[in-house]
Amino acid sequence: MSEFFKAHQKTLEAACEALKKRDFWTAYPEVPSGKVYGETAKEDGEAAFKARLGKPFAIEGHPNTGSAGAEHSPYGLEINIKYPTAPVEELVSAARTAGKTWGKASIEARIGVCMELLDRLNKRSFEMANAVMHTTGQAFMMAFQAGGPHAQDRGLEAVAYAYEEMTRTPGTATWTKPQGKHDPIVMEKQYRVVPRGVALAIGCATFPTWNGYPGIFASLATGNAVIVKPHPMAILPLAITVEIGREVLMEAGFDPNVLVLAADEPGAEKTKDLVANPEIGIIDFTGSNAFGKWVRENAAEGTLVYTEEAGVNSIVIASTDNFKGMCSNIGFSLSLYSGQMCTAPQTIWVPRDGIDTDQGHKSFDEVADGIKLAVDKLLGDPARAAGICGAIANPATVERVKTSSTMGEVVRASSPIEGLDGARTATPTILKVDGDTTDSHMSEQFGPISFVVGVNSVADAIKQAATTAKTKGAITASLYATDEATQEAAADAFSEAGVGLSCNLTGSVFVNQNAAFSDFHVSGANPAGNACLTDAAYVANRFRITAVRKHKAA
Amino acid sequence: MSEFFKAHQKTLEAACEALKKRDFWTAYPEVPSGKVYGETAKEDGEAAFKARLGKPFAIEGHPNTGSAGAEHSPYGLEINIKYPTAPVEELVSAARTAGKTWGKASIEARIGVCMELLDRLNKRSFEMANAVMHTTGQAFMMAFQAGGPHAQDRGLEAVAYAYEEMTRTPGTATWTKPQGKHDPIVMEKQYRVVPRGVALAIGCATFPTWNGYPGIFASLATGNAVIVKPHPMAILPLAITVEIGREVLMEAGFDPNVLVLAADEPGAEKTKDLVANPEIGIIDFTGSNAFGKWVRENAAEGTLVYTEEAGVNSIVIASTDNFKGMCSNIGFSLSLYSGQMCTAPQTIWVPRDGIDTDQGHKSFDEVADGIKLAVDKLLGDPARAAGICGAIANPATVERVKTSSTMGEVVRASSPIEGLDGARTATPTILKVDGDTTDSHMSEQFGPISFVVGVNSVADAIKQAATTAKTKGAITASLYATDEATQEAAADAFSEAGVGLSCNLTGSVFVNQNAAFSDFHVSGANPAGNACLTDAAYVANRFRITAVRKHKAA
Repeated sequence: MSEFFKAHQKTLEAACEALKKRDFWTAYPEVPSGKVYGETAKEDGEAAFKARLGKPFAIEGHPNTGSAGAEHSPYGLEINIKYPTAPVEELVSAARTAGKTWGKASIEARIGVCMELLDRLNKRSFEMANAVMHTTGQAFMMAFQAGGPHAQDRGLEAVAYAYEEMTRTPGTATWTKPQGKHDPIVMEKQYRVVPRGVALAIGCATFPTWNGYPGIFASLATGNAVIVKPHPMAILPLAITVEIGREVLMEAGFDPNVLVLAADEPGAEKTKDLVANPEIGIIDFTGSNAFGKWVRENAAEGTLVYTEEAGVNSIVIASTDNFKGMCSNIGFSLSLYSGQMCTAPQTIWVPRDGIDTDQGHKSFDEVADGIKLAVDKLLGDPARAAGICGAIANPATVERVKTSSTMGEVVRASSPIEGLDGARTATPTILKVDGDTTDSHMSEQFGPISFVVGVNSVADAIKQAATTAKTKGAITASLYATDEATQEAAADAFSEAGVGLSCNLTGSVFVNQNAAFSDFHVSGANPAGNACLTDAAYVANRFRITAVRKHKAA
Repeated sequence: MSEFFKAHQKTLEAACEALKKRDFWTAYPEVPSGKVYGETAKEDGEAAFKARLGKPFAIEGHPNTGSAGAEHSPYGLEINIKYPTAPVEELVSAARTAGKTWGKASIEARIGVCMELLDRLNKRSFEMANAVMHTTGQAFMMAFQAGGPHAQDRGLEAVAYAYEEMTRTPGTATWTKPQGKHDPIVMEKQYRVVPRGVALAIGCATFPTWNGYPGIFASLATGNAVIVKPHPMAILPLAITVEIGREVLMEAGFDPNVLVLAADEPGAEKTKDLVANPEIGIIDFTGSNAFGKWVRENAAEGTLVYTEEAGVNSIVIASTDNFKGMCSNIGFSLSLYSGQMCTAPQTIWVPRDGIDTDQGHKSFDEVADGIKLAVDKLLGDPARAAGICGAIANPATVERVKTSSTMGEVVRASSPIEGLDGARTATPTILKVDGDTTDSHMSEQFGPISFVVGVNSVADAIKQAATTAKTKGAITASLYATDEATQEAAADAFSEAGVGLSCNLTGSVFVNQNAAFSDFHVSGANPAGNACLTDAAYVANRFRITAVRKHKAA
């Protein structure tokens, strides 16, 4: 049995158990503490990151007939790293060749490599935090947690599901069919896990590891070589992942091209050629609905495509027994990473005639103002604002924020964050609109742009929010309601629209947050994505089973 | 808890266990014996079947604005049954409406209905045998076994996988996240199984129940209403299934339109309109590659499509220590249901310079003759020939047999079976070809048409057979080889081509046979189909999960 598998077997078993219980569980501590990661881990990680800047990123044995890389830190830091690359055909060919042995390796050997890779990634979480921060614009704490341990947990989830799905069928079986008074018929059967072919994982610009690891690890674990195609604006986190993965593969005796990087630059993306390549058997995609549709429609015949696209996340406000807590919680959700999370709420539905609260009746305007004031208070201190909002990944988002003020009445105007010189920043814009007279709130406005929307009633709010989820997609939904009947009605409506619901969040849990081993991310049941990170369906079709049967020798 | 669930819980648990062990197991006895099914079961079943002939097939509460049905027995019996039907929009609307409550029912309630339906179908196996026999042309014994208990086992397999996949996530969980010295964060989570929408099951003309039940039961169990669209030549077996299913649904308090029949007639098929209907969330299809491709390409965006199409099944003959047993076994495989099984071998690859056997070296011609003589012997008695070959489902198959003699040198000519007056019959045609000079053997020739193909070597035979499987599809593969190296090479090659391999079958197990709970039918990894009957991947994506989370009340 693989040494790596043995070393991590207990963690794997605990992960499998956690998936069944869905209580809080994590394999990788989320606190960026020296006590957990080593007293010098923070400095070492930063130094390792800085040592990469301005240099070619060498990857031993990687297809390397050219180089690519044009990342720019949203914080203004010079990145200037060039990654090895090669034409699409060469990358695919290298992965396909390496994948033959990988696909025939034992389940334990492959799972062992995946577990060891996750473990090494965990130890490199500070370096990864810097890489994620300076490509995505996330603040350091989020970059550490979401880019490091939380992403590793998401990867482990996929490995655990893959292990369970592959081992639910035994490697061998004896089939004994009684024949009455005669001897039974006895056959020996051998079952083989057969991979789909070369997998392609297309990363996004905001959460390259958190969104990328599930697909990468699900495909790897099930025997498929993986071509990792990072977003051209966020290559480094996935390049580090590939680099470490190849080291582990080599140590385990595999061709490192089981894990290949497809780096490219804006304007010269390799994505379309990779998607259409007939050797690609699996595609994981995180990105826009428009490009997601292109991927789904242009993948070669028979290619499995798993997407996380985008949608319009709603909050329905019906009533609350904690008006202050509600406003603070919503304010934080709107501010966190400046609304660039696929889980961030955008559209807040409120009855035109207001809501009942612990502070008495609040008018529609008072609700909107309450949220505005909570954001103002939260972001009043520039250092705290920087730590919550981070920077803006894409310049287009800043432009969108600027022009968004025409879409409604400005309740709160966006502004840059003081003290982050050279960084691209924008605090939340909050707009007020009437649901009957406009519809910008029913389309995704990516970034720190949100709408407080006046509607007829609570029932109308639920109906419109759920309909928007069903037609435009949604990854999260949130409800504030003190009565169970409204909670139940909302749960039914959002469930039917394929979106999970958070009820009455007023403390330190936010609708944007999604916990590995407990929460399912994306349902696969509305246009925000056709798959879920991570459930059994996400892994079970990445391999097939073939059998060999023969009569048992007498 | 549902009464039906309780009544069948032990069978369900045994089925789940059987899927893990993959030893011989069955819930429904395959012997058409009075001791098992009741002393009068045979006569009762035949009487029940005959009572349906020449009459409208009434289904209580079924959409019924017209009627359809133009089945003709391959045995010549007058069928003349008219089934209730309605325009596609009405069928879909009825199923969608009924599906709402069905989708919200408990897992146990739905599984209970499925298990009860299977149990009642089992009790009606003799009636079903007559219905299958006189629509498909199968001989009585096969119609009983494959149309009855074996099909029921296949349905149960799907129900068991669905139960396991749905219950692997708990209905509720408590999530307790430690907060150091502070109180933990405690959240309550509720997980809901959400169906995909209305499912469509498109049946085939040869094995309407065996091929139809997996998809029908997988979709039903996971909460989807199902529109059953039988092949216009084989409606009755699925109409009986729908009729019984609706009785069970009503008894359990559900709208019977959870199970709807879409009967039609040749030349006025409803299939294309159903496939393209945007309300359809899942399609199961069994049929030709050409129409399978159409279904895959024309299903509405986001519809899951599971297909069993067709392919070219190969036998590679390298050597044998039982020449007589080999020839008999192959002869039976070619004769059974006159080659109309999707698992029947078609192309027999033999080295041009012959093979080593227990009877000494046999030339290529001697191998071909050995198989021919085995068929002649097997079918020498007309009554036995009728019991093995049955009748030909589709008149086009008889035409194909007639014209096939131009595709090679005739080793054995097809002939009608004596004594089956009025029936459409054809015994196997066996052709001899050289692999270098023709290629008809590399395309599917549906029906009792097979080729003995001369090739350079055993390695060449394996390579050509596996390549044909990979490019044209294959559902089975068979090998005769006395040495392990050849067995291993063939296992590798066929596995990579996505097809299971049977080795050295010389007794009473045939390559055409596929045992529920042990053998996987179709791999989903070559053009013979994109899915497997049945594995976890076949069921896991038929539902999605949404969650509701809230803080635990203090």
